[in-house]
Amino acid sequence: MKIAVDAMGGDHAPKVIVEGVMLAKQSFPDIEFQLYGKEDAIRQYVTDETNITIIHTDEKIASDDEPVKAIRKKKQASMVLAAQAVKEGRADAIFSAGNTGALLAAGLFIVGRIKGIERPGLMSTLPVMTGNQGFDMLDLGANADNKPEHLLQYGILGSFYAKNVRGIANPRVGLLNNGTEETKGSELTKKAFELLSQEPSIQFVGNVEARDLLSGVADVVVTDGFTGNAVLKTIEGTAANIMSVLKEAILSSGIKGKMGALLLKESLRDVKGQMDYAQYGGAVLFGLKAPVIKTHGATGPEAVANTIKQIHTMLDTQVVPKLVAHFEAEKNAEQ
Amino acid sequence: MKIAVDAMGGDHAPKVIVEGVMLAKQSFPDIEFQLYGKEDAIRQYVTDETNITIIHTDEKIASDDEPVKAIRKKKQASMVLAAQAVKEGRADAIFSAGNTGALLAAGLFIVGRIKGIERPGLMSTLPVMTGNQGFDMLDLGANADNKPEHLLQYGILGSFYAKNVRGIANPRVGLLNNGTEETKGSELTKKAFELLSQEPSIQFVGNVEARDLLSGVADVVVTDGFTGNAVLKTIEGTAANIMSVLKEAILSSGIKGKMGALLLKESLRDVKGQMDYAQYGGAVLFGLKAPVIKTHGATGPEAVANTIKQIHTMLDTQVVPKLVAHFEAEKNAEQ
Repeated sequence: MKIAVDAMGGDHAPKVIVEGVMLAKQSFPDIEFQLYGKEDAIRQYVTDETNITIIHTDEKIASDDEPVKAIRKKKQASMVLAAQAVKEGRADAIFSAGNTGALLAAGLFIVGRIKGIERPGLMSTLPVMTGNQGFDMLDLGANADNKPEHLLQYGILGSFYAKNVRGIANPRVGLLNNGTEETKGSELTKKAFELLSQEPSIQFVGNVEARDLLSGVADVVVTDGFTGNAVLKTIEGTAANIMSVLKEAILSSGIKGKMGALLLKESLRDVKGQMDYAQYGGAVLFGLKAPVIKTHGATGPEAVANTIKQIHTMLDTQVVPKLVAHFEAEKNAEQ
Repeated sequence: MKIAVDAMGGDHAPKVIVEGVMLAKQSFPDIEFQLYGKEDAIRQYVTDETNITIIHTDEKIASDDEPVKAIRKKKQASMVLAAQAVKEGRADAIFSAGNTGALLAAGLFIVGRIKGIERPGLMSTLPVMTGNQGFDMLDLGANADNKPEHLLQYGILGSFYAKNVRGIANPRVGLLNNGTEETKGSELTKKAFELLSQEPSIQFVGNVEARDLLSGVADVVVTDGFTGNAVLKTIEGTAANIMSVLKEAILSSGIKGKMGALLLKESLRDVKGQMDYAQYGGAVLFGLKAPVIKTHGATGPEAVANTIKQIHTMLDTQVVPKLVAHFEAEKNAEQ
């Protein structure tokens, strides 16, 4: 399998990207990597050239570029070339740690949607505090406005992913809502509830509340992109704030508190580890003709390697071709 | 001033409600309390009868009653009688720790909306991790669907509250959105952004992201009730989960971890204190002709007393009559 890597995306590119690729190469000798970006800058981190091709380009998309414009104007950008390679069948998937909006645009406009899928959704596997399983949530912000039909499709997409990529036999699909009762919700979620209830290909478990997400109330949680974005950022902001308040409380607590913190070091590290969702890989723009994956914020080589492992599983399990077949069959059944 | 208290609402009613009233009485001898509910059950916790009137009723609304139906059918319920007292001018505000939906319904259908306010919003003051000031957020779920005009009104309502009740001279009003740039957002938030920008009576500071809420990015944050509900519950769920993972990590860490936890006890308590938003009082259904207030989940006497203090300030500063005058003037200006 061939993965097109935008080696210039992210704050510490190309260093951590290439280091992550080198790390992943050790576990996956069946992957051929195409690294797009400045050849000199990339080559200094390539410690083993087998299965590595560098495709040189000087152009790259900056983190503050306007996404759609950047994709259209910067035709030689590393991200655009990588997406082109996927479109033209020279690569099977694209990976980037760069500008999220631009990657979404590259995914939609260059790689393209699966026939029958209206609005691909951004999906991540988020941690469940009481176990290692996690849950898949989408849309996390690829769209600002969604229709009930999109939420139904997210249920199908998420279920496919949980089943094929994460090995959950019969994933529980929940609808994020403002109450668990069937009658609860906005106009959008009430209609989505109906559609999800009637869908035979998934196990719909009804409404779930934001309060219970991290307790593992479902394996897949669907919501509109606006709410999903707000919920994801609230989880991140709350966790970061609690950790910083805790740190400050320890630092200002004198010798006693500092000794306590020293003794508790491992426990605190456990908590951070439990919260770290880079362990599950990156965010997938799901519903496209090939895997298009973004790694999280401050990426290190391990997060890059985890994401490559995730792409390997996606390609290995053929989750995208299976999706294509599902929506093709559905369309034929309708006709 | 007279406060109508639903003494039967909440898990530990009437005990904690009456104990909270007794606590508040010590600070506010100018409040006359009307306690609605079972006289015998209430009286055993009344340690000082000055300024206390008990209005007996056997009926009450259960936590799982269907809100609107309960308000219509249970005409003698403690919550309904308390709301009636406000409607008929026999009390100035109503306080309950009972069924939130029923209290919202009682507020809307019995107390009634301020003329010119379309959709009253549920508002709480939430904690900011880096200080004691907190921020007011609404709508937290009184409505499942909102229009841009409602979000504008929430900006005005929140600003009035922050100014009058919390003493913030020129409150910064932010719009919760999926990015900080002006062009970002859903159809709803884009239009709301426009309306908020043009409103002369508030200091609109633009879009704010959910990630930055707890860092004090604004004094007032407006959003639709569906998103607000999801964000509030995500904050609660994330905080509760982190605390429980931390506890578990400590408990399973052997003697070393337990010693550390003992030494860190005060710091951990500080963190919990910082997160405790009962310190700011209860949730206000704001936009009604009188203060209608709900205290948070597991209420203790201190939270009840804090909420009564909040009601006292609301009545003292005449924030509701000022709102009435504002929307009256606006209506006249339009004509």
